[in-house]
Amino acid sequence: MNKNYIVPSEWSIIENGFDADNVEASESLFSIGNGSMGQRANFEEDYSGKTFQGSYIGGIYYPDKTRVGWWKNGYPEYFAKVLNAPNWIGIHIKINGTTFDLNTCKISDFKRELNMKEGWLSRSFTAEIPSGEKVEVTTKRFVSVEINEVGAIEYSVKAVNFSGAIEFAPYVDSGIMNEDTNYDEFFWEILEVIDGDNNACILSKTLKTEFHVATAMQVSFAINNKEVSATKETSKEEKKITHTYKLQVLEGDVATIYKYASYTSSMNYEIADLVEASFLNVEKAANLGFNALLASQIKSWDEIWKTADIVIEGDVKAQQGIRFNIFQLNQTYMGTDARLNIGPKGFTGEKYGGSTYWDTEAYCIPFYMATKDQSVAKNLLKYRYNQLDKAIENAEKLGFTNGAALYPMVTMNGEECHNEWEITFEEIHRNGAMIYGIYNYVNYTQDFAYIPEFGLEVMIAIARFWHQRANYSAAKDKYVILGVTGPNEYENNINNNYYTNYLAKWCIEYTVECLNKVKEDYKEDFDRVIEKANLTAEETYEWLKVSDNMYFPYSEEHNVYLQQDGFLDKELIPTDKLEASQRPINQKWSWDRILRSCYIKQADTLQGMYLFEDRFSKEELERHFDFYEPITVHESSLSPCVHSILAASIDRMPKAYEMYLRTSRLDLDDYNHEVHEGCHITSMAGTWMAVVQGFGGMRVWQDGILAFNPQIPEEWKSYSFTINFRGNTIKVYKSQTECKFFNESENEIKLIVDNKEIILTPSVEVVL
Amino acid sequence: MNKNYIVPSEWSIIENGFDADNVEASESLFSIGNGSMGQRANFEEDYSGKTFQGSYIGGIYYPDKTRVGWWKNGYPEYFAKVLNAPNWIGIHIKINGTTFDLNTCKISDFKRELNMKEGWLSRSFTAEIPSGEKVEVTTKRFVSVEINEVGAIEYSVKAVNFSGAIEFAPYVDSGIMNEDTNYDEFFWEILEVIDGDNNACILSKTLKTEFHVATAMQVSFAINNKEVSATKETSKEEKKITHTYKLQVLEGDVATIYKYASYTSSMNYEIADLVEASFLNVEKAANLGFNALLASQIKSWDEIWKTADIVIEGDVKAQQGIRFNIFQLNQTYMGTDARLNIGPKGFTGEKYGGSTYWDTEAYCIPFYMATKDQSVAKNLLKYRYNQLDKAIENAEKLGFTNGAALYPMVTMNGEECHNEWEITFEEIHRNGAMIYGIYNYVNYTQDFAYIPEFGLEVMIAIARFWHQRANYSAAKDKYVILGVTGPNEYENNINNNYYTNYLAKWCIEYTVECLNKVKEDYKEDFDRVIEKANLTAEETYEWLKVSDNMYFPYSEEHNVYLQQDGFLDKELIPTDKLEASQRPINQKWSWDRILRSCYIKQADTLQGMYLFEDRFSKEELERHFDFYEPITVHESSLSPCVHSILAASIDRMPKAYEMYLRTSRLDLDDYNHEVHEGCHITSMAGTWMAVVQGFGGMRVWQDGILAFNPQIPEEWKSYSFTINFRGNTIKVYKSQTECKFFNESENEIKLIVDNKEIILTPSVEVVL
Repeated sequence: MNKNYIVPSEWSIIENGFDADNVEASESLFSIGNGSMGQRANFEEDYSGKTFQGSYIGGIYYPDKTRVGWWKNGYPEYFAKVLNAPNWIGIHIKINGTTFDLNTCKISDFKRELNMKEGWLSRSFTAEIPSGEKVEVTTKRFVSVEINEVGAIEYSVKAVNFSGAIEFAPYVDSGIMNEDTNYDEFFWEILEVIDGDNNACILSKTLKTEFHVATAMQVSFAINNKEVSATKETSKEEKKITHTYKLQVLEGDVATIYKYASYTSSMNYEIADLVEASFLNVEKAANLGFNALLASQIKSWDEIWKTADIVIEGDVKAQQGIRFNIFQLNQTYMGTDARLNIGPKGFTGEKYGGSTYWDTEAYCIPFYMATKDQSVAKNLLKYRYNQLDKAIENAEKLGFTNGAALYPMVTMNGEECHNEWEITFEEIHRNGAMIYGIYNYVNYTQDFAYIPEFGLEVMIAIARFWHQRANYSAAKDKYVILGVTGPNEYENNINNNYYTNYLAKWCIEYTVECLNKVKEDYKEDFDRVIEKANLTAEETYEWLKVSDNMYFPYSEEHNVYLQQDGFLDKELIPTDKLEASQRPINQKWSWDRILRSCYIKQADTLQGMYLFEDRFSKEELERHFDFYEPITVHESSLSPCVHSILAASIDRMPKAYEMYLRTSRLDLDDYNHEVHEGCHITSMAGTWMAVVQGFGGMRVWQDGILAFNPQIPEEWKSYSFTINFRGNTIKVYKSQTECKFFNESENEIKLIVDNKEIILTPSVEVVL
Repeated sequence: MNKNYIVPSEWSIIENGFDADNVEASESLFSIGNGSMGQRANFEEDYSGKTFQGSYIGGIYYPDKTRVGWWKNGYPEYFAKVLNAPNWIGIHIKINGTTFDLNTCKISDFKRELNMKEGWLSRSFTAEIPSGEKVEVTTKRFVSVEINEVGAIEYSVKAVNFSGAIEFAPYVDSGIMNEDTNYDEFFWEILEVIDGDNNACILSKTLKTEFHVATAMQVSFAINNKEVSATKETSKEEKKITHTYKLQVLEGDVATIYKYASYTSSMNYEIADLVEASFLNVEKAANLGFNALLASQIKSWDEIWKTADIVIEGDVKAQQGIRFNIFQLNQTYMGTDARLNIGPKGFTGEKYGGSTYWDTEAYCIPFYMATKDQSVAKNLLKYRYNQLDKAIENAEKLGFTNGAALYPMVTMNGEECHNEWEITFEEIHRNGAMIYGIYNYVNYTQDFAYIPEFGLEVMIAIARFWHQRANYSAAKDKYVILGVTGPNEYENNINNNYYTNYLAKWCIEYTVECLNKVKEDYKEDFDRVIEKANLTAEETYEWLKVSDNMYFPYSEEHNVYLQQDGFLDKELIPTDKLEASQRPINQKWSWDRILRSCYIKQADTLQGMYLFEDRFSKEELERHFDFYEPITVHESSLSPCVHSILAASIDRMPKAYEMYLRTSRLDLDDYNHEVHEGCHITSMAGTWMAVVQGFGGMRVWQDGILAFNPQIPEEWKSYSFTINFRGNTIKVYKSQTECKFFNESENEIKLIVDNKEIILTPSVEVVL
C-alpha cells in the first residue's frame, strides 16, 4: 500500500499524529540539507523505536570493499559510499530522571512540519512519560544555507503537570555505522575527543580515504525565553562526548536548549585547523543566536525560490509535490562546489552508494541551468572535466587506448565504483550524456567559451572511446556497437542499441564540429588542447568513418527504428494486456523473463528522441511513441517524465498528465514502498522537466533560441514557472487562456512561441 | 609457471623432496577417496606451514546464504556447499616433548606416493627436529573401498639418534570451518563428545540441513612391529577429543600408531544409532588390522582397473595422466548410491560448491557407462529422476507452468544453488543434457526399459520446458529461443544459440518418439506416466509445432550454422593472431571485451555436432570445425577433449593430439595454477573420452551398434583400453598396425569397424 499520511499544503510537508510505522519514512521525507551537509529527520532525543539514523557531509566517502557473487575481470575493487557522519543533533533528555523516549510515551497533538519556503524542520507534541509527567515539546532545526557548515536546534520542553528537573544532555557521537556496508565494517577512526566550557568537539577521520572531520557543538539555555546558565557535567567516551545539564522548572515553565553544531572537513581546511574552525563556527552561530540564524535562513530560501518556484493553482497536492522536488534538489546541491554532485538519495539515505550517475547530465543539469546562475551548471560540467584522467584510466582498464575515456556509471571521485558487468561495462551510453550535458549547457547559456576552455578535452576523449568501441561488421558493411545495455536496463548485452549508436554518432559529429569552431575562433585553446590530446586531423577522419557509417536497426514494416538488433523476434504484447498481478514485473518475474520480454523499463529509443527532439518530425515522434510507449512499464523513476514531455509535444495531454502523476509525488506518497531508505533525488529533476519542458513546452535547441509551447493539464486552474535564462528571470504564466512572459533585465531576448518569434523586453506580455 | 614436480610413473603419483610451496598442490593431487568419503592429502601430524585442510563426506552439504553484489529476481537464497567434515586423520606427535612439525624440521629423503593401482597414499622422510632428534617416518593411509565408511592410517617413527619418548596424540576434531564460506560462518553444531577406552567419537550435526555425523577413532600401537599397549590420557574439548599416549623408545626403535576412523551419517542410519555404528566400524577395522584392510583395498582397486584401465606404451607421462584421471573419477564416484553425484572438485576441494553440473550427463556418464556395470550410469540418471519435482519447482519460480522442468545449473539436492543470472537462468541447454544422458545410456546399454520406468517423466517435463521457452517470431515466421547462454560462456544473453535450439528441437522429437514407443510396447507404464503428467496428444502436437519450425541461424557465405544471431557482426580474428600477452583472455580482458569478441571458451556449435556426430557428414564437420576451432580459446577444461574427438574423426590427428595434451595432465602439471584449490574431476572424464571416443573412435549411436575407428598419436608406441559393454569386457588394442577386440562373454556382439560389420565372439581378433 502507498502511504497517504502527508497533509496537503502548498508550502510545507506536514505530518499530523504520531505513528511509529511512519517514523522511518518521515525521517526521509522531512530531511534537511544545504548542499554541503544534510541529514535525515531523526529525533534529537532518544528513540527506542525503529529508526534509520543518518547524517551526511557532501564529498566525504568511503571505498567499501566490493561484494560480488562471482567476480568478473575488470570489476573495481571498491564501491565508494556516501558516509554516515558523526551525529551532531543528539540530545539525551530526562524528565525527573526518566529518559524521554517517544516510543514509551503517550503522545498527543503530534505535528511535524518541513517548511520549504523557509527551510526548517519543526516538531510539536504533548507527551506523557511512563511516570506520569506531561510535557509539551516544540523543536525547530535547520542547516544553514548561509554558513553551510552549521546547523542549529531549538528544543523546548514545557513542564505541563509537574515541577522538577529537566535534564538536557547534548552530545556529539562519532561511533556511527553505515546502514549500507558490505562487510559490517566501521568506517571512522576517532582521533581526538575535546571538551570545552560550553562546547565540545570530536576529530575523526575516515579509514582509507583519510577525510578528517571535526564535529563541534555549543549550547545555551533559556527558561521561559529568558537565557539562563546551567552547570555542566562531562562524560567523555572513546567515540562520544556528552554534556549533561539539569534545569529545575516549576509547573508551566518552558525549558529550552539551543544547540549549535558544525562540521569542518579536510576538504576545506588544513587538518591542524579543523578543530578550531569548527569551534569558531559554533561560537559564531551561538553569538548570532537562533533567531538571527533563522532569519538569514528564511532570506536564503527566499532567494532560491525567486528563480525556481513553480506555482500551480487548483491542485494543492500537485503544488506540494513540485515544490518538494524543487526544495529537495536545492537541499542536495547548491552548485557552489565543483567537487560535489547530486547523489541519488541526496542527504536522505545511503542506498546506491556513490554520488554521481548519468542522471546528473541527463536530468539534473536542465533544472540547475534554468533555476540558478549559469556557474552552477558549469560546476557540474567541471566535475566531469576534473575527473577526465580517471575516466581515461577507467577505459584503459577495459582495454581502450590512446586517451579514450569511459566515464563511470557511479562515482565519487572519478573512479568507477559499480560492479555489475551488464551495467558497469556495458551501459556505456552514459558517456554520450557527458557530451550532451555540455551541448545542452552551451545551447542554453550560449557560453561556448566553456568548450575551448574545458569541454573539448572531454569530448575528444569520448569521441575516441566511441571510435574504438564500434567495430566494422563485414556482414552489414557498417559500423556496429556490440554488447551494450541501453537506458532500458531490462535488456542486457544487446547489439546495436539505437540510442547508444545514435549518441555515439552524434558525439563524434558534434566533437568534430566543435573542433572546427574552436580552431577558427579560439586558436590558442585549440593548439593547447590538440597538443595535450595529441590529436591529428587524420585521427578525426577515422572517427568520422565510424559516425558516417553507423548502423541503425530499422523496421520497414513498422516504420520505426528498433531498440536493438532482433527486437522484433520478441512477442510484442502491450502492457495493458499484462495482468495487474504480474506488475511490477521487476518484483514478479525472474530476470531472464524480463530480459526476453518486450517490456521496456524506461525511455530508450524515445530517450534519444527526447534529447534530440528538434531533429525528428512530429510524425516520427508519434510513430515511435505509439510503438514503444505501449510496451513500456515505467519501472524506473526516470521513465515517466520523458514520456510525459514527449506526450505533451505530440499533443497527448491526458497521457502527459498521467505520466507526470507517476513521479510528481513518488516519495510523498511512497509509490515504491521504499521511501524509508531515502528520497529519489535525481528523479525529482525529471518531474521538474515534465512541468517546464513538457507542459511548459520550454526547450532550447542548438540555435540557442528558447521555445515555449505551454499547455496545462485540465486538472489545474493555472500555473506558472520561473526560470533563469542568460541572467534574466523569466516567469511563464499559463491559465486556460493566456501566457505571460516577464523579463526583468534590460536585454533583448528572442523567443519562439507557437512558431512566432518574439522579442522579449522588460515585462512583455504575450497572449497565446 | 606450470608446476613440474610430479615424478613420471606408470602407476603412481610421486613427489620427491619436500617443498613447502608445493604442499597445498600436493594436498589436492594426492587426495584419496572411495566414492563415499574422501580427503585432501593433509599431513596427519601438526603442520604450521601453508595448508588447506579438507575432509568430505558424499552428500553432506550446507546451504550457505547466497552472496551477490546486486540481487536479481529469481536468485536462490542459498548455495548448497560441499561441507568440510570433522578431521579424523589428525595425530599430534611430540618427540621428547617437542611438537613434531615439518615446517620446523630439517627434512631429507622426502617422498610422497599415491599408489593408484592399489589405492593408498604414503609418505616417507627423515626429519631432524630443532632440538636435534632425528626421526625416520613412514606413513600409509587409505579410505577403504570395501568398508566405505572407514579410513586407516599406519604411522611409524624411527628414533634414529636418540632414546626417549615419542608421544602420539590421535584426535577427532569437529571444530572445522569451510575454506569456502560466504559469510565466515561455522556450519557444524557439536552434540556429543564421547570418550572410550581406546576409542572416541564426536557426534555433530550440520546447521540448517541437520545431517548428523558420528566421527569415531580407535588406535593401537606397535614397537618394532610388535603390538604394545600404551597408557592413555584424555583431553576433551568442546569440539575435539584427543587421546595422548607416550611411548618410550631406544635409539633405532620404530614406534607405530595404527589409527582407524569412521564416519557414519544420518543419510544411512537412524540418528540414535550413529555413534554405535561408528564405534562398531572402527572396532571391526581394528580387529581386521591394517594389513588385512590394505589387502582388501588392493583387491578392490584391482577389480576397478579390470574394466577401466587404459594402457599407453611409449609415453610414461601420458600413461600416468590417463590413469590419474581414471583413478580420481573412481575415487569421487563409485556409483552405488543414487543420492550422490560427481562434484567438480570431488573430495579434493570445495570450490564451485554444489556437487552436480551438466558435466555429469555430458562428460561423466560415458565414462561410468563404459567402465562399470550399467547400474552405475543408471544411478546417475536416477539421481535426476529423483529430483524431478525440484526441477519443476525450479521452473515454476521462473514463470513456467504445467509441469515444465528446468534442472538446476548446480545442485546438491535438486534445488538450484547457483546465482549468476546469465548462467543460472539462461544457460538452459543443460536441460537438454538431461535427456541426452538418457538417450546415450539407452543406446549404449540397450536398456530401453529405463525410459518407461523412469526416463519418460523427465523427458515430458523437459519437452514442456522447451515448448514454453521458445516463442514465435512473427518477423522470422519461426520459433526462436531468446536470451540464453550456450556452452560457450563467453557469450551471455544471446538469441538463437544454435546448440540450444538444436537440443530443444531434438529433445521434443526424441520425447515424442519415445512416447510412441512406450505406448506401443509398455502400455501400462504409458498409462501411468500419461496420467501422472496429465499429458494429451494435443499437447504433444503443440510441442511439435515448435520443433518442426525451430529457427537456426545460418550463414550462406560461410556455409555454416552460426553460433547465435548476429555472430557475423563480430570481427573474426583467429586466435593465432592474438598476442600471447593477451592470453588467457579471461585473465587479461575485461568481461565485456570477452563477450563482444569472437572468442569461444569451449565447444558450442561443435558441442552439438559432437553429441550428434552421426547426423552430420564429414564435410559438414570439417567446415564447422574449420570455422569455429580457430576462434576457440579453450579456456574451459571441458573444451579440448571435445575438439580432440572431432579432430580425430575428421583425420586431423596432430590437432587431436594437441588438444588431448591440453587436458590430460591439467592438474598434474597445474596448467591453470589452481590445483591447490582441488582437482578438476569432471574434466578428467573428458580426457578419458578423448582417448576412447577420439583416438579409439568408439561411439555408440541410436542403432545401438558399437563403432570403433582407432587411430593413435604418433607419439605413442601402442595403447589399449578396456570397456564394459552390455556386460562384456572388451579390450581394444592399437599399435601402429593392428587392433584387437576381446569379448569375454558368450554373447554375440555386433560391432562396426571401419564401416565393416563384425560379430564379436570370445577373443575375436580383428586386424584393421
